[in-house]
Amino acid sequence: MTESWLNKVNWSDDGLVPAIAQDAATGRVLMVAWMNREALKRTAESGEAIYWSRSRKKLWHKGEESGHIQQVREIRLDCDADVILLQVEQQGGIACHTGRESCFYSKLEDGAWVETDAVLKDPDEIYRK
Amino acid sequence: MTESWLNKVNWSDDGLVPAIAQDAATGRVLMVAWMNREALKRTAESGEAIYWSRSRKKLWHKGEESGHIQQVREIRLDCDADVILLQVEQQGGIACHTGRESCFYSKLEDGAWVETDAVLKDPDEIYRK
Repeated sequence: MTESWLNKVNWSDDGLVPAIAQDAATGRVLMVAWMNREALKRTAESGEAIYWSRSRKKLWHKGEESGHIQQVREIRLDCDADVILLQVEQQGGIACHTGRESCFYSKLEDGAWVETDAVLKDPDEIYRK
Repeated sequence: MTESWLNKVNWSDDGLVPAIAQDAATGRVLMVAWMNREALKRTAESGEAIYWSRSRKKLWHKGEESGHIQQVREIRLDCDADVILLQVEQQGGIACHTGRESCFYSKLEDGAWVETDAVLKDPDEIYRK
């Protein structure tokens, strides 16, 4: 696979773009993380979501600790070429580090954020210290 | 409505967060734009998606020119409080300025971005000069 497709992405000044992971079966938006060129390249090559951790400043193979790997079924790019959309199969049914299916578990109701989604697994069990 | 919920959002240094618009009926991710505090406040108050245009440096009531208003059915926030997810009813069935349903019309296939989605309406007709 040549890498010219990677040049079509409008990387930001810090070399990143946001990447949305959407459940390929249900359509639920699971999370948003960041990718640099290497992360996107490896995601396409491996078929598993690999992001750039801005806090740890290194590549982050999603699920490497938790086992909650994301198998990538499709990769899309938006019209401005600065956002990636992944269709994924979420292993374990948990994308969020809080043990929930989706990171978007807070819903605005009557001027307050309400946590609408249950924790499916205790994070202490997911990330064994 | 008090504004304390707006303080829970982790605005970036430039006062923005990305906002994903997802079709409330089909689950299709339509677009990603940016919001500042005022945009999110007005979106919640009006029930229509209002973004911050980074290029024009002003509030952008989506559909103000095209008529492709987004009626907002739900507003969610992610676990890091730095991404907004909107469930919207997309008026006209077109979110993208190219005249397509979704901005994510390019799909990675065999190392190339392929435009998979049809243009539903000529942009020259949408944005009458």
